[in-house]
Amino acid sequence: MKGFITFFLTFVVIGAIAQTIQSPSGEVSLNFKLDNGNPVYSVSYKGKAVIKDSKLGVKLKDAEGLTSGFKIESAKDRKENSSWQPVLGEVATIANNYHELAIMLVQEKGDRRLNLIFRVFDEGVAFRYDFPKQQNLNYFIVSEEVTQFNLTADHKTFWIPGDFDSQEYVYNETKFSQIDTDKLNLNNGIALKSIGGKYAVQSPLQMKTDNGLYLNIFEAATVNYPVMHLTADVKNFGLTSLLVPNAIGDKAYLQTPCVSPWRTIMVSDDARDIVGSKMILNLNEPSKIDDTSWIKPMKYVGIWWEMHIGKSTWDYAGSQNAQNAATKDLIPSGKHGATTANTKHYIDFAAKHGFDGVLVEGWNVGWEDWFGNWKEEVFDFVTPYPDFDIKAVTDYAKSKGVKMIMHHETSGSVANYERRLDRAFENMIQFGYPAVKSGYVGRIIPRGEFHDGQTMVNHFNFVARRAADYKLMVNSHESSRPTGYSRTYPNYIAAEAARGNEFNGWSSGNPPMHETILPFTRLLGGPMDYTPGIFEIKMNVYDPKKTEQVHTTLAKQLALYVTMYSPLQMAADLPENYEKHLDAFQFIKDVAADWQDSKYLEAEPGDYLTVVRKAKNSEKWFLGAITDENARATTLALNFLPKGQKFKAIIYEDGKDADWQKNPKSYNIRTIEVTWKSKIKLALAPGGGAAISFEPMK
Amino acid sequence: MKGFITFFLTFVVIGAIAQTIQSPSGEVSLNFKLDNGNPVYSVSYKGKAVIKDSKLGVKLKDAEGLTSGFKIESAKDRKENSSWQPVLGEVATIANNYHELAIMLVQEKGDRRLNLIFRVFDEGVAFRYDFPKQQNLNYFIVSEEVTQFNLTADHKTFWIPGDFDSQEYVYNETKFSQIDTDKLNLNNGIALKSIGGKYAVQSPLQMKTDNGLYLNIFEAATVNYPVMHLTADVKNFGLTSLLVPNAIGDKAYLQTPCVSPWRTIMVSDDARDIVGSKMILNLNEPSKIDDTSWIKPMKYVGIWWEMHIGKSTWDYAGSQNAQNAATKDLIPSGKHGATTANTKHYIDFAAKHGFDGVLVEGWNVGWEDWFGNWKEEVFDFVTPYPDFDIKAVTDYAKSKGVKMIMHHETSGSVANYERRLDRAFENMIQFGYPAVKSGYVGRIIPRGEFHDGQTMVNHFNFVARRAADYKLMVNSHESSRPTGYSRTYPNYIAAEAARGNEFNGWSSGNPPMHETILPFTRLLGGPMDYTPGIFEIKMNVYDPKKTEQVHTTLAKQLALYVTMYSPLQMAADLPENYEKHLDAFQFIKDVAADWQDSKYLEAEPGDYLTVVRKAKNSEKWFLGAITDENARATTLALNFLPKGQKFKAIIYEDGKDADWQKNPKSYNIRTIEVTWKSKIKLALAPGGGAAISFEPMK
Repeated sequence: MKGFITFFLTFVVIGAIAQTIQSPSGEVSLNFKLDNGNPVYSVSYKGKAVIKDSKLGVKLKDAEGLTSGFKIESAKDRKENSSWQPVLGEVATIANNYHELAIMLVQEKGDRRLNLIFRVFDEGVAFRYDFPKQQNLNYFIVSEEVTQFNLTADHKTFWIPGDFDSQEYVYNETKFSQIDTDKLNLNNGIALKSIGGKYAVQSPLQMKTDNGLYLNIFEAATVNYPVMHLTADVKNFGLTSLLVPNAIGDKAYLQTPCVSPWRTIMVSDDARDIVGSKMILNLNEPSKIDDTSWIKPMKYVGIWWEMHIGKSTWDYAGSQNAQNAATKDLIPSGKHGATTANTKHYIDFAAKHGFDGVLVEGWNVGWEDWFGNWKEEVFDFVTPYPDFDIKAVTDYAKSKGVKMIMHHETSGSVANYERRLDRAFENMIQFGYPAVKSGYVGRIIPRGEFHDGQTMVNHFNFVARRAADYKLMVNSHESSRPTGYSRTYPNYIAAEAARGNEFNGWSSGNPPMHETILPFTRLLGGPMDYTPGIFEIKMNVYDPKKTEQVHTTLAKQLALYVTMYSPLQMAADLPENYEKHLDAFQFIKDVAADWQDSKYLEAEPGDYLTVVRKAKNSEKWFLGAITDENARATTLALNFLPKGQKFKAIIYEDGKDADWQKNPKSYNIRTIEVTWKSKIKLALAPGGGAAISFEPMK
Repeated sequence: MKGFITFFLTFVVIGAIAQTIQSPSGEVSLNFKLDNGNPVYSVSYKGKAVIKDSKLGVKLKDAEGLTSGFKIESAKDRKENSSWQPVLGEVATIANNYHELAIMLVQEKGDRRLNLIFRVFDEGVAFRYDFPKQQNLNYFIVSEEVTQFNLTADHKTFWIPGDFDSQEYVYNETKFSQIDTDKLNLNNGIALKSIGGKYAVQSPLQMKTDNGLYLNIFEAATVNYPVMHLTADVKNFGLTSLLVPNAIGDKAYLQTPCVSPWRTIMVSDDARDIVGSKMILNLNEPSKIDDTSWIKPMKYVGIWWEMHIGKSTWDYAGSQNAQNAATKDLIPSGKHGATTANTKHYIDFAAKHGFDGVLVEGWNVGWEDWFGNWKEEVFDFVTPYPDFDIKAVTDYAKSKGVKMIMHHETSGSVANYERRLDRAFENMIQFGYPAVKSGYVGRIIPRGEFHDGQTMVNHFNFVARRAADYKLMVNSHESSRPTGYSRTYPNYIAAEAARGNEFNGWSSGNPPMHETILPFTRLLGGPMDYTPGIFEIKMNVYDPKKTEQVHTTLAKQLALYVTMYSPLQMAADLPENYEKHLDAFQFIKDVAADWQDSKYLEAEPGDYLTVVRKAKNSEKWFLGAITDENARATTLALNFLPKGQKFKAIIYEDGKDADWQKNPKSYNIRTIEVTWKSKIKLALAPGGGAAISFEPMK
């Protein structure tokens, strides 16, 4: 066994005191030093620099910064090698194995203390600022971090602009030096944009070096703190923290003792180490919910896609500027989707095909006049439209063994939502809804706040905590992107917080590479409600004038149920579209949403991803393989299967002539017998994918 | 009977179209004209100008203002002569008698509409902006009003600075031209100040002309709109609207159809017409609460003054920066006021002396670290300190026939209060508290908002409405000052929103004239919880080093129960101080808090006030007379008493040697028999007063 000394070294070089720790494997190494009183760190992987000397520190409002003038008061190290069981997850047990180094700094002038906590995992480094309780620092306001991530070269970078209000962008795959938000085509279907500068990008930021290293910068455990975006120095290949401000330009209001979120740098020469990492979850606090028996995976259908394609509407009465109109005075347009009859139709479909839940959007009054006006009181979250009989619907669902999923669109008016939240949750309890999908489309109220500021981070976390009091699950859309809080509040079952499948319905959409990048970025922080399963790929089916389409083949839509991990999975298309392809639909019916184990077999951000997972409490395995706009042939060894067991493999694959643009609905289903010794050849079409069910045979 | 023609005249003068309406009495006259497309009004009283030509209009953000380019599309007039019964009030029936003129304006360029609604009462003029539903104006943001009040001369003015966060100032009595907030001594005990400029003053603004006219500028029905402060043009004697901004500088977010608050100008040559006016209440909407049987006047005592004088503390454990400390880890300081035993002592006292309620401040956890740090989560509003057994206390109170009054200090964190409000109210219901005193000491969260902005006006009104859902009464402290919303939500039983008696305990205090001005200003908008009844006038009783004192005699403290109208009245001093003066205390025990009728016998702002009121559902009358720093002798005719009925008049008056500074506790009580023909001579000491109970004799 390697001794303590090997991972914790202190040495004095000229003008600096330096300390180094290594990961358990010894491959990742972090160096910390004080450079004339300024804290500086660097990271190397297998002996080569990955992050060059980069500054650490926090600037304060109305006070001297915690950035310089430090000396090291003491240092402590610690090893952690434990494991834990997520309530829902990609794997049943998560190993948490790292070496920790805590550096206790003191500013000689002013006698103020700042601790730096470094954790080095086999797949990367995390550090946070720890502000201990102390005489000379109690309440303080963070005006910015000076945290840097100085890169070694002009890496390939998958970036979206550092927008304080939205992450619903397509990824740009460019050299780091080509980052420039001014050059983006912003006709992209995003309603509200607040980009934080020409060189502002979001984390998680996935990069690849010319030497084949995969590098990922993100954060974990963003609690009582704003989201960290990054400003790129495109000349020197550096990144600096860009914290999201509040209405008056402040970043974070804190009181000692407290901590910042973890800043994370993942690195590996194998992309599968990044995409499969549980480092972000590990850096979050364990579950604070004792009884988690009510937190369950859900596959669901819902009244939702039919609004996106224009078949029906969220509103009952068309746009009527209805602020001052009583609902009884509204004249129904006849296109309202969330009617009692239509809901029963979806309940019937869910019951017939074994889905757990039915989501109904547009069930409650307010949709006549809900968006784009920064309006405070849009929804009350409890009053159904006259044509939606909530009692009848929930009674019917119960009789069919189906759960209803509530919908709370806030239109960004958090002030209104918070003051009505208890009533909204009590309404859910009254009618037996176990889960809520929340939405935050629009400018935030309190006015001047951004979706990614401290106030809103606190709001999203608060809703999860408050929902836990009611034993309700939450799936937030248009929230800040998760950073692992679902470990602490596992009822925060999913979030959107990235560009979802919906954009394919009515905008320039999501290019075929999109879903190969999300697992390297958005999904690191927690499950995404991507809403896959669109079988009717081209929108001209609904209206010949439409040119929009889903940028995948049908088979790839099936694969997404495996590649996009979420314990909440929607079968997003219309029941009638599934009825036309019941053979392919069978995969969505069969696939699990909670897993005993997961293995990333192949991964390359922007190109392809192949994942296989074993369902929890089951001997079934499911495989998903996707590609970008390029066709791809691959041969997969099935050595993940248990030895000595035969499996029936049902392979849902692209048809020979399939192509996401020309022939997206061409698919083939074949069944073969396999064992752990078998290999399967898969041919993925351009924009295509494959999904496989492995069922043990008697 | 006067015909329609006499109060509504249209005439054309050169370059302008003018219209005039008169009050029912004909004494107040309002003239409106379009001056080259600019709306302009003026007001006269008994034929003499009171408000010279003054502009009207509203500036919009990101849109052309509604200020000029108008023509008159039509005009409508209307008479109102009705009456209504307030649930609680100074009088049982309020007459509402005015003439109304509505001017429908249209901007030729842009085809946008703005209506001006004028109402002329016998005691003044009110007008509001009415934004009708229209094609070309839907959502809009008010950036400022151009509303002017151009005065005729350099009037005497009672002003406090236009502070967006506080009204807790002493009044400055100066010439209008001497208004200058830079010259104020701001060492005045106010913790948070946000003065809106060198010439910013607050409304209500009471003035007096050299000709003996009393002029008052205020507003009514401030709903979904910020508070209107005023900027003085000290050279030209003009006032212009200064609306309180939000965090990003906007004033009001509105959607047509909607209205502004009423802007009011009261005028009379008799000060009693101003102080007795019900114009502000009349301009508010009728009660929206159907069953008001649970809204009841309350006289109360409480654990409150003992903290102000330093005998005990709100907190349980002293200042311990307790954000992260569990209550169980706190070490009690031994000075906590809100203990179970102490509360029972107050309950006993209340029961013995016939008080309705007991207020307990400091009962709930959070006070160790509550103020001055812009902290979001200070209080949860439901968790008592370990030494306050809420169940035992409320059971005991119930057994004694006493109601408990809840206390919710928000420390300005409205975000936290709103998200916990339902839980806080449910806690009150659970333990049977019928009323809550709320507090808003500190900078507002959402950060960047002011106490007087639209967001906070909406909050205070929301709390009243939500409390009504629970049948709870609200008494808000440090709220924006009321503008008559208690007519619409009569459970909004009182507010502080001015410099209360508490400032006498620990600051430069309230000069003797203070209470003679408040009825002309703060009280026009609704009842004030002034907390009178301090018998132990000088604070050096508690600590010889203290120099603070109440700036009145003891007798004047009694008179305040009549002169300061409120259906919620505290006997604010310590039980032991009342025990020493049970004879004087008898007046506080006897005095009513809800009235059949009120008559202002004498009034001069800044000098004196004499009021007599008849208790509701009783034949008893009560009189209060107060003076400023000058002694005052007066002879009062008792012709308000019913004819043919003898009364026992118990007169609580200043002792011959009384003086607010030298000998404040000198008082005399005498009883005489009187009838409606009698006269009573009163001699008020400097800073003194007198209180009289009239009890009908058999």
